[in-house]
Amino acid sequence: MNVHNDMVAIGERGRVAAQALNRLNARKKNLILEAMADAVEAHHDNIMSANARDLEEARNDGLAPSLVDRLLLNDRRMQATIKGLRDVATLKDPIGGIVSQWIRPNGLKIVKKRVPIGVICIIYESRPNVTVDTAALCIKTSNAVILRGGKEARHSNAAFADALIAGGRPKGLPEHAIQLIATTDRNAVKELVQLEGLIDLVIPRGGEELIRAVTQHARIPVIKHYKGVCHVYVEAEANLDMALDIIENAKCQRPGVCNALETLLVDQTVAATFLPRLAERMQACKVELRGDDATRALVPGAKAATEDDWFAEYLDLILAVRVVPSLDAAITHINHYGSHHSDAIVSDNEMAQKTFLHEVDSATVYVNASTRFTDGGEFGMGAEIGISTEKLHARGPMGLEELTTYKYLIYGKGQIRQ
Amino acid sequence: MNVHNDMVAIGERGRVAAQALNRLNARKKNLILEAMADAVEAHHDNIMSANARDLEEARNDGLAPSLVDRLLLNDRRMQATIKGLRDVATLKDPIGGIVSQWIRPNGLKIVKKRVPIGVICIIYESRPNVTVDTAALCIKTSNAVILRGGKEARHSNAAFADALIAGGRPKGLPEHAIQLIATTDRNAVKELVQLEGLIDLVIPRGGEELIRAVTQHARIPVIKHYKGVCHVYVEAEANLDMALDIIENAKCQRPGVCNALETLLVDQTVAATFLPRLAERMQACKVELRGDDATRALVPGAKAATEDDWFAEYLDLILAVRVVPSLDAAITHINHYGSHHSDAIVSDNEMAQKTFLHEVDSATVYVNASTRFTDGGEFGMGAEIGISTEKLHARGPMGLEELTTYKYLIYGKGQIRQ
Repeated sequence: MNVHNDMVAIGERGRVAAQALNRLNARKKNLILEAMADAVEAHHDNIMSANARDLEEARNDGLAPSLVDRLLLNDRRMQATIKGLRDVATLKDPIGGIVSQWIRPNGLKIVKKRVPIGVICIIYESRPNVTVDTAALCIKTSNAVILRGGKEARHSNAAFADALIAGGRPKGLPEHAIQLIATTDRNAVKELVQLEGLIDLVIPRGGEELIRAVTQHARIPVIKHYKGVCHVYVEAEANLDMALDIIENAKCQRPGVCNALETLLVDQTVAATFLPRLAERMQACKVELRGDDATRALVPGAKAATEDDWFAEYLDLILAVRVVPSLDAAITHINHYGSHHSDAIVSDNEMAQKTFLHEVDSATVYVNASTRFTDGGEFGMGAEIGISTEKLHARGPMGLEELTTYKYLIYGKGQIRQ
Repeated sequence: MNVHNDMVAIGERGRVAAQALNRLNARKKNLILEAMADAVEAHHDNIMSANARDLEEARNDGLAPSLVDRLLLNDRRMQATIKGLRDVATLKDPIGGIVSQWIRPNGLKIVKKRVPIGVICIIYESRPNVTVDTAALCIKTSNAVILRGGKEARHSNAAFADALIAGGRPKGLPEHAIQLIATTDRNAVKELVQLEGLIDLVIPRGGEELIRAVTQHARIPVIKHYKGVCHVYVEAEANLDMALDIIENAKCQRPGVCNALETLLVDQTVAATFLPRLAERMQACKVELRGDDATRALVPGAKAATEDDWFAEYLDLILAVRVVPSLDAAITHINHYGSHHSDAIVSDNEMAQKTFLHEVDSATVYVNASTRFTDGGEFGMGAEIGISTEKLHARGPMGLEELTTYKYLIYGKGQIRQ
């Protein structure tokens, strides 16, 4: 067995499938998606028993309970997965859409048209529903998909993939349009991300460690976010009640996700008024505070923050707090320590809002709202394949349109260049 | 001297400059560009004597005459360079433009706004005017630029960069907004392309060897085309007179460029009529033909093409010719052997045109026109920083808009996520 050759073969089959997918119209693709949803329903028992095997192995391997929970499929999660598939079928297909078109003085007509990217590889861990969610978005946009799930979810992922293919094929899903990597060999990822010319894009979904492993050897484009070190800056003219509500929501509503708050910056002019109130609110939410000296002078209970805390993505009920002397200092802090994901200012001063929006170099920048809204669903995209902190191609929440590229079609009548 | 540390310092200075550039409005940037053009005029003698040094060293080093010619600056080229700078000043600034905006049911207003990419590194060879052209496009789009030119043009490049900076600084060009790499150490490129977080994008401009050297170690996004293996397919229902004109133009008008024709595909139904006429026309243009067996049966003078010829970018008066049994075979050939750059069909059959446009997986696909039109100027973009065969971010000719990204600005009134 040679992992390199196996992955090349998978890439080549993906390319052929991408050409076939490119011939399907929106109606046909939606029928396929509906049939895939039906098949996941029909394969319910098979999927649940595969999941039971994964869960048993996970417990035997001593996996942390939080990871075991991510693996778990129950009726609610199965229903959500099936609904997700049917929802994707109802979304507008971006493929074939005309981005712009114009006619040149020599009569050449230039049409910039939305087309599939080609072959997309998704590398993920734990949650087996990602198999279904991401395959659906790729098929909807006529992209062949190569799925590489976590070893711990391999039986569930295989059962899901079997259902999708069994449901889709009779309705015209091209052969190899959905391929699940069966081998658990760790070198498979390294090989996949070097398949220049066969795979067009890699999207890793998971923790920072997974993403670094993917990018380390990548020779093909990777769209990703390493982490979400999100900030709220309470400006001098902030509505402090609003600030408390936004901070509580951004920190506590779901602390384990990438758009949760990690570092709070407080303008020195409001620190004395605001920080004692913050401490009270955070204590009620069981949030541990780690502050700089100025914060600790006002909140004696706070632990001392170190340099590492400003870079930290806690994903937990911990909040780093720093008092800053100015708007500029807040922006400088965010651009230096942040992850360019989601950052918010709370302020009633329009000039400060404008400067913050303009100068914070992040994918999504908020005025007077919680960072938790960085999400394809909350943005109204209908679906999300991930969130990007890249600057090229896709930035912020990625929906269907971000899974497309464009090409130029040029219509002539024999024009030659002078 | 430590190249790694030097390049990191240059990247860090670029980041600071990018923030300062982000504060300039369009009017200010245009004044800077005009002042840069004035300075290039004022530094004329200095630039010409620097160029004379490069030319002398090039001749002493025994550089090929074609490379020496690329280095050469004369009055015509100087005038074109200065005009280019002034033209960029007159173009519309894409920065700050609103891509789209909408309001969510919860009242959040989402604005998708065009912003600079940040720090862009241009790696190029020989032609010193690239220093001016690319710096102008980057400054116009508020991107800091790091220029790494060829060793052979180093005196000319330095003289141009000095002029640009001397002209721009008094008008508000931020310090280090334009940085020219002075060292000729080959490791500089390897270091630059690994500066994740400091440089946002690398654009190599030059031959395939240069581009492979850049991509080999790249850890940051590279937008490029390795080569242009462009095709014309003469379909069964082609206007043969038009086909001859298009082929002559695409092959001969400027054979050394990436959008020139390299392989001709002829449908078998018209081969017997068309190929003798082609042979005559190509002979008149001094083009060497390399054909498959079917071609050579009809054109006895043609050399035998090997598998390598189908992949070849000759950049010379040589044309590979293959007879294909069908439209599908032509498309399969192009997608397999081509470089996804520019490909054309000559045909009066609408169905064939449509299939070709849809299934050829290239950045620009033509019906009844020469491939030579793949160019920012010919597309009406006003300026061009290069041509991309990438699928992500920018595909085909790249103008000002392709040097931008976007960010989401979200305006709330205290919204929190439920």
